[in-house]
Amino acid sequence: MSETFIGTDIGGTNIKLGLFDSELKLVCKTSVPVEADIMPEAMVDLIGETIEKMLADNNLSKEELRSIGVGSTGQFNLDDGFMISNPNLTSFQNVPFGKILVERLGKPVVLENDGNAACWGEYALGAGRGVEDMVFFTLGTGIGGGIINQGKLVHGSNDSGAELGHIIIYPDGRLCGCGQRGCVEAYASAKSTAKRATDAIEGGAESSLKKAIEEKGKITAKDVYEHLKAGDALAKEITDGTAKALAMVCINMLHITEPKRIVFAGGMIAAGEVLLKRIKEYFDEQIWRLKKETVEICFATLGEDAGIVGAAALARDVKEED
Amino acid sequence: MSETFIGTDIGGTNIKLGLFDSELKLVCKTSVPVEADIMPEAMVDLIGETIEKMLADNNLSKEELRSIGVGSTGQFNLDDGFMISNPNLTSFQNVPFGKILVERLGKPVVLENDGNAACWGEYALGAGRGVEDMVFFTLGTGIGGGIINQGKLVHGSNDSGAELGHIIIYPDGRLCGCGQRGCVEAYASAKSTAKRATDAIEGGAESSLKKAIEEKGKITAKDVYEHLKAGDALAKEITDGTAKALAMVCINMLHITEPKRIVFAGGMIAAGEVLLKRIKEYFDEQIWRLKKETVEICFATLGEDAGIVGAAALARDVKEED
Repeated sequence: MSETFIGTDIGGTNIKLGLFDSELKLVCKTSVPVEADIMPEAMVDLIGETIEKMLADNNLSKEELRSIGVGSTGQFNLDDGFMISNPNLTSFQNVPFGKILVERLGKPVVLENDGNAACWGEYALGAGRGVEDMVFFTLGTGIGGGIINQGKLVHGSNDSGAELGHIIIYPDGRLCGCGQRGCVEAYASAKSTAKRATDAIEGGAESSLKKAIEEKGKITAKDVYEHLKAGDALAKEITDGTAKALAMVCINMLHITEPKRIVFAGGMIAAGEVLLKRIKEYFDEQIWRLKKETVEICFATLGEDAGIVGAAALARDVKEED
Repeated sequence: MSETFIGTDIGGTNIKLGLFDSELKLVCKTSVPVEADIMPEAMVDLIGETIEKMLADNNLSKEELRSIGVGSTGQFNLDDGFMISNPNLTSFQNVPFGKILVERLGKPVVLENDGNAACWGEYALGAGRGVEDMVFFTLGTGIGGGIINQGKLVHGSNDSGAELGHIIIYPDGRLCGCGQRGCVEAYASAKSTAKRATDAIEGGAESSLKKAIEEKGKITAKDVYEHLKAGDALAKEITDGTAKALAMVCINMLHITEPKRIVFAGGMIAAGEVLLKRIKEYFDEQIWRLKKETVEICFATLGEDAGIVGAAALARDVKEED
């Protein structure tokens, strides 16, 4: 009998689940919507029923499922399996989530922060393969991340480490949703990239994006990249700002945990090679001269599956007694 | 027979050595000068002779010495015991330093970067006691540091992690000796603090420090703090700048490795409570509002002995077969 693992990714509006074989090859995946006010027990039932259906659909018995990994937004006490709070799920306040998952599912469960789970996915099976020290950024609406040090996730003293979007790069700079000023998230997330372009146009900058705003009411980071490809000067300036902000955090992370590879994921990497190239150029231009650095900066390869892959990979590593 | 350990701290102009008992209590210490062009074999002989004299002076036999820890400036390949380069010691280029130390001394040797060694000293026996996650900054002529994650030093992929003085806090800011712009070292080291004050006065700022420059030719960070205590407005502004720069790196480290305690060491802490208070005030003012942070920010307690204490503590942990 071969072993099967489930990787789960709990987001703000839905739960993604993947069924993986013993080699961590994805057998099938699904997504179920959740309401913001779902109760923890109801969510656990939903996860349990979905897993049972996935197993049945693939002619697998529950005995063949060894363990379940769960990556989720929110704050955790990972040792005790508590979800302390969750910005998306209002009923998740100090919930012994690990315990009720184990009780409902009857299998070992490993809980992880969503950024860390996706980081672990890229590390185990994606762009981070082959290195022991890696830093991972998800460039989505916000910016999340994860750090691997000598083959292990860095959790920090209260399981709130690797909040890499909130590294301050411009003191007294743009206001971030977190309350700080100058966070990298306030410059280089998809939302901030679009906002910087919009602010510039509202401030009188000339750009082909102006018409897009007039027509659609607002623009997205995708619009910025489309206009960049079409040669718009403001779109280039905004993208340069995004790239520079990301290069700064790359330099800083190099001087902190010294990764061998830095991996960018999330919607923003749809900008493509032009963004990656500019990040590398700023990095090379701004990095110290004391020694030659060889850190690799690259894009993620697992796309939106990184979270479920990472959760499944963590589940595979869990010991029976956990 | 009780065990004895040697902690060694190789600096730019001298080598400090401490003899420690089995409880890591300092029995005696000494310092010997070194020339910048000393050959590795000559330095190892000097260390060996000094250790032999320290043992003899304390009526200890060589059998009672179990192991030796060596912290040093320079770049390392720690796994192989190589000193790759050293800004202060011109003959140390790709030297199998660990190997020749073991051969000369006939005892297990553990090699470590000087910032990490001092960090480990404070962690084991100083201001870091009782926590598992700590960040350490030495505020001297330059800024060095160390990171402890879950009770272990973070070395990075090429043993060049935790170069915390070169975290960029002001992109395009003041030029640092490393070639980057805006490093925390370019703002908050003793040298940079004095330089910012001098630059301000040369730029026309009014200050009681002006007379000090005229009289002595130049000022130091110590002058800045003395004039601060006497109520000089510029000295206050410069100290605020130092504190703010340090608060920024505290916030960033909290979002990266999430230490439980952040410890500042080095000559700059002679500024006293006024500096620590301002760092904490800026931290509280600028930190995110997403959750309450409880990281402790404090000064080191071992003073200049941190390096030899840390090296000895590392020596105590070394296994016989190492």
